[in-house]
Amino acid sequence: MLQTIKKIGVLTSGGDAPGMNAAIRSVVRTCAFHDIKCYGIYRGYEGMIDGDFIEMDARSVKGIINKGGTILKSARSKEFRTKEGRQIAYDQLKKAGIDAFVVIGGDGSFTGAMIFNKEFNFPVMGIPGTIDNDIFGTTHTLGYDTALNTVVEVIDKIRDTASSHNRLFFVEVMGRDVGHIALNVGIAGGAEEILIPEEDLGLDRLVESLRRSKKSGKSSSIVVVAEGDKIGKSVFELKDYVDQNMEGYDVRVSVLGHMQRGGPPSCFDRVFASRMGVKAVESLITGKSNYMVGMKNDLIELTPFDQAVKGKSKINKELLRVSDIMSI
Amino acid sequence: MLQTIKKIGVLTSGGDAPGMNAAIRSVVRTCAFHDIKCYGIYRGYEGMIDGDFIEMDARSVKGIINKGGTILKSARSKEFRTKEGRQIAYDQLKKAGIDAFVVIGGDGSFTGAMIFNKEFNFPVMGIPGTIDNDIFGTTHTLGYDTALNTVVEVIDKIRDTASSHNRLFFVEVMGRDVGHIALNVGIAGGAEEILIPEEDLGLDRLVESLRRSKKSGKSSSIVVVAEGDKIGKSVFELKDYVDQNMEGYDVRVSVLGHMQRGGPPSCFDRVFASRMGVKAVESLITGKSNYMVGMKNDLIELTPFDQAVKGKSKINKELLRVSDIMSI
Amino acid sequence: MLQTIKKIGVLTSGGDAPGMNAAIRSVVRTCAFHDIKCYGIYRGYEGMIDGDFIEMDARSVKGIINKGGTILKSARSKEFRTKEGRQIAYDQLKKAGIDAFVVIGGDGSFTGAMIFNKEFNFPVMGIPGTIDNDIFGTTHTLGYDTALNTVVEVIDKIRDTASSHNRLFFVEVMGRDVGHIALNVGIAGGAEEILIPEEDLGLDRLVESLRRSKKSGKSSSIVVVAEGDKIGKSVFELKDYVDQNMEGYDVRVSVLGHMQRGGPPSCFDRVFASRMGVKAVESLITGKSNYMVGMKNDLIELTPFDQAVKGKSKINKELLRVSDIMSI
Amino acid sequence: MLQTIKKIGVLTSGGDAPGMNAAIRSVVRTCAFHDIKCYGIYRGYEGMIDGDFIEMDARSVKGIINKGGTILKSARSKEFRTKEGRQIAYDQLKKAGIDAFVVIGGDGSFTGAMIFNKEFNFPVMGIPGTIDNDIFGTTHTLGYDTALNTVVEVIDKIRDTASSHNRLFFVEVMGRDVGHIALNVGIAGGAEEILIPEEDLGLDRLVESLRRSKKSGKSSSIVVVAEGDKIGKSVFELKDYVDQNMEGYDVRVSVLGHMQRGGPPSCFDRVFASRMGVKAVESLITGKSNYMVGMKNDLIELTPFDQAVKGKSKINKELLRVSDIMSI
Repeated sequence: MLQTIKKIGVLTSGGDAPGMNAAIRSVVRTCAFHDIKCYGIYRGYEGMIDGDFIEMDARSVKGIINKGGTILKSARSKEFRTKEGRQIAYDQLKKAGIDAFVVIGGDGSFTGAMIFNKEFNFPVMGIPGTIDNDIFGTTHTLGYDTALNTVVEVIDKIRDTASSHNRLFFVEVMGRDVGHIALNVGIAGGAEEILIPEEDLGLDRLVESLRRSKKSGKSSSIVVVAEGDKIGKSVFELKDYVDQNMEGYDVRVSVLGHMQRGGPPSCFDRVFASRMGVKAVESLITGKSNYMVGMKNDLIELTPFDQAVKGKSKINKELLRVSDIMSI
Repeated sequence: MLQTIKKIGVLTSGGDAPGMNAAIRSVVRTCAFHDIKCYGIYRGYEGMIDGDFIEMDARSVKGIINKGGTILKSARSKEFRTKEGRQIAYDQLKKAGIDAFVVIGGDGSFTGAMIFNKEFNFPVMGIPGTIDNDIFGTTHTLGYDTALNTVVEVIDKIRDTASSHNRLFFVEVMGRDVGHIALNVGIAGGAEEILIPEEDLGLDRLVESLRRSKKSGKSSSIVVVAEGDKIGKSVFELKDYVDQNMEGYDVRVSVLGHMQRGGPPSCFDRVFASRMGVKAVESLITGKSNYMVGMKNDLIELTPFDQAVKGKSKINKELLRVSDIMSI
Repeated sequence: MLQTIKKIGVLTSGGDAPGMNAAIRSVVRTCAFHDIKCYGIYRGYEGMIDGDFIEMDARSVKGIINKGGTILKSARSKEFRTKEGRQIAYDQLKKAGIDAFVVIGGDGSFTGAMIFNKEFNFPVMGIPGTIDNDIFGTTHTLGYDTALNTVVEVIDKIRDTASSHNRLFFVEVMGRDVGHIALNVGIAGGAEEILIPEEDLGLDRLVESLRRSKKSGKSSSIVVVAEGDKIGKSVFELKDYVDQNMEGYDVRVSVLGHMQRGGPPSCFDRVFASRMGVKAVESLITGKSNYMVGMKNDLIELTPFDQAVKGKSKINKELLRVSDIMSI
Repeated sequence: MLQTIKKIGVLTSGGDAPGMNAAIRSVVRTCAFHDIKCYGIYRGYEGMIDGDFIEMDARSVKGIINKGGTILKSARSKEFRTKEGRQIAYDQLKKAGIDAFVVIGGDGSFTGAMIFNKEFNFPVMGIPGTIDNDIFGTTHTLGYDTALNTVVEVIDKIRDTASSHNRLFFVEVMGRDVGHIALNVGIAGGAEEILIPEEDLGLDRLVESLRRSKKSGKSSSIVVVAEGDKIGKSVFELKDYVDQNMEGYDVRVSVLGHMQRGGPPSCFDRVFASRMGVKAVESLITGKSNYMVGMKNDLIELTPFDQAVKGKSKINKELLRVSDIMSI
């Protein structure tokens, strides 16, 4: 027999991403639409353990769809990784009468939810919120599209000064395990080369590419480097290498860092968040549990948590080729 | 036997859209990559008839990937709609040794290309460039994503003043035949209601919706109206209607107009343009003709022109429901 | 003997402007710094009459410095223009123990405060908040710098499409009585001509200027028109005039409207608001009353209300000449 | 007798700044307005020595008023610091018939121009172009206002993530010798503390301030640090210090770097550039030489080079106090 859901909790967990507030809003309003009570859980699983809950109605989320960050705040919880921590969290949820929760976060947060579901048979649903777009089972993660635009705007600014001074810039962008951001902003920012975790371009090719670019009459160059690039060199080391091994370059470095996580979400991310919030709540209502909501072929679909956390999303190799052609 | 392509022309036609320059750049550089000459054709089919061509090499398109508008300029040509006009255009292309062309534009431009291809057996390829996203056979048109972000930013600004004064705003956005822009920016901008060409919401429901919204404690409201909304009233008429039939509203109107077409393209549109340019040129090289390049399920695919111009892209009805739930 | 101020009210009145929230924040925090209680008064003088007050401490204004609009909301009050209305307002303030207030608004709001001060000998201070920059006694009004940047960004977008199609655009910007916005955005946006309330350019000169511009090889033109331009024609009438009297122009019109009031304030407006809030509160503390805070020669200075409301700020005629030279 | 100026050169020198293109455009068009020929000199004094000149007419500068960087490119020239280098430069100018030049740059560039003027009695005029606002004799330098807005936008984004995670951020902004940028963006970005070259806040006060801030219930903090802050610690060292000496902080660091120099100029900078270009050319025409154009009390005024290069612009100490009050 289907257990009726009466109170749903919502939390944001792990690194924040633009669109998290839009997703919270959607979860809250979809609950209101279906006459289900909704509780915000502060500071991710940490707040769950502390019983840091607040009841949220449709009006409580007004004016947040365009705000970066998360009004529920986020955190990484060590305690939730222990059986004891999760037991306390469960007791807190029960005490508050919460029947199910939606967690907005990355694969670490989903793993936590999956274990929690297994231990307590507690209905859970996930919304992928991370700028890295590194989650299997969805073509997009929430915040990714916004981050791409944020980074491209910054690269446009760096190019202004690069081309005024005939400089070579190494620009480090986020992406420890996957090169989605680097690959896309590299193409969109007109980069000479793009260094990503998935492909070992090799220093030799980088050097050759820069030489060819100079020879072809280009007066300035930008190389986009993902945090976790396969060459294994930081942008500072890359600068040193070029300084020592190549003549005639004025090399500069820029590490974009945390600004990539902020800012008002793009239209895509707001709509995406709104759609996923509806799907998450309505899936819980119809008795589903243990799934991640995501996008496949422009449709909102579910992927079982165990599949989502096992894989990594793959880069599209076509883009590597497009980048090569564009930087001719 | 496959005719070898040695010179490719590229033109922009119809209304301009952000990303057209990125697409021109991609066509030019893909030609350079394959050692094919590339000619820019100014002012769409008008310039084709006038023989207004310029040779473009890889360096000639530097610094344009982030520029709105089109460096080749665009126009609508009456003459090209006549057999005589197209004959002159053909003669001009032959005189310049151009073997094929890529036209970046909307369905009108594709129809022109299709007829031209039929009459002269001239290889043609299309790239969908229009902010309206109204073309069958592709989930996105070039410039659409940028326009969405442009409009949402403006609605965010209008909301600032709307909520400071407890006002009702009717905001008109582009979309004569399809409601894609209205539907997405309506959700992303937190609109109370969204009036689109595809659905006759009816004035009664609008009025009821506004009343319910006021009753529920909302102090300000935004209604997004597509140019071609089914109710058939302009935003000015809608304002008059509310002024005359409802008490207690301070109603304002905003017509966004042409600004929606401008601005630096989003990351998505730059990458999309780059990918489509590669595909268009390489398809011509391999002997294909009479296709529109587009996106299906995140992949770059071809659609025959005759299919592309016959249909209109459909809105996703799921979004109507999401909008209803979000405006609770 | 100096009456000690213990509770200060703050309100926003008239049209909203970016930076109002930053000014509210500054008033609240300066009160907190000096151990004075601060009350927010909702909806301008209307809320004053209704006794719609809320106590505000330093934390209550966090996260608003970068938000457009006004969290206290704004309104125009007819009742406050009557002696009876003001008496009720005075009674409400007394009942709440409020000793003085800071009103953020335009010259209408200052006139109200001045009369109120005269009638009840109640300490009042004004902060000029309006995008029009039309107030005498200050080189800048709060929100003006932000609005300039907002409008220039839009004109940049319009130019993208104007120059892609060789079009003439009439762009209407705010400014019923003064041409500050039109004059500055006209220069910054590269306009051919700028029509303002202060100068009667005349239709003849406009026509001549457009003809000269076309002759000189310019392919597109933008004419910026202040709402209250001296020629006395709306942008729609100007379009009709050109359509009927000049050959070979594709004329379009854009009315920017309310979006000009919204958006996150510029750095200048945030700092300006912060400085003025400090000055307003500290002036009240030292026994001053009946002044507008403003900027003169980059310093924060006081101007008596009666002077501020009598004059209008003048445009800098040097800018007219600069505009003429730039549009050669 | 006044020597008639017939050909004016224009160059950009030193670090680039937003608005340099707008200033070039203004110089070129003012020359055209007065029927004087104008030559662009590439790569600053280096291009002057190489005779790298190009004739520029009014149309050659279209579409650049809103572009960051400098179309004439910039450089620092060692050779121009030698008598021999300057002699070659002089010969090149004479050969090209150039009678005078306008240099857009910082105090180093002005020193070069001043020496050149003394040695060859060659008419020179300077326009202060640098984001640092560090030049004596003008309240603003070109690009400063734009950089302030660029940095504030980034801090807004960093605050999104800071407040989602209760973090402390040290954000490094430009300003080796003066704290103008840090001081203004610190206030506008709601920073807890601002470390600048002019004031030794001291580590003790910083620590105390952070403790007080935490105690007062603030959950996240941003400290803005000018490159050349008086404490003499980099943001990385500051992070280490807090990590080692204070409990309970999650400290992050962001170095904004070169992006601060890029981007489309603000409305203010475009108008300012336009006004200064007119003044520079018209001053040369009327026989003036050896001055820097700048802004004093909102008017465009001249300052003799020897005064401009001797002093540094001072920060406004009022702002330090405003910052203290705002961060209560």
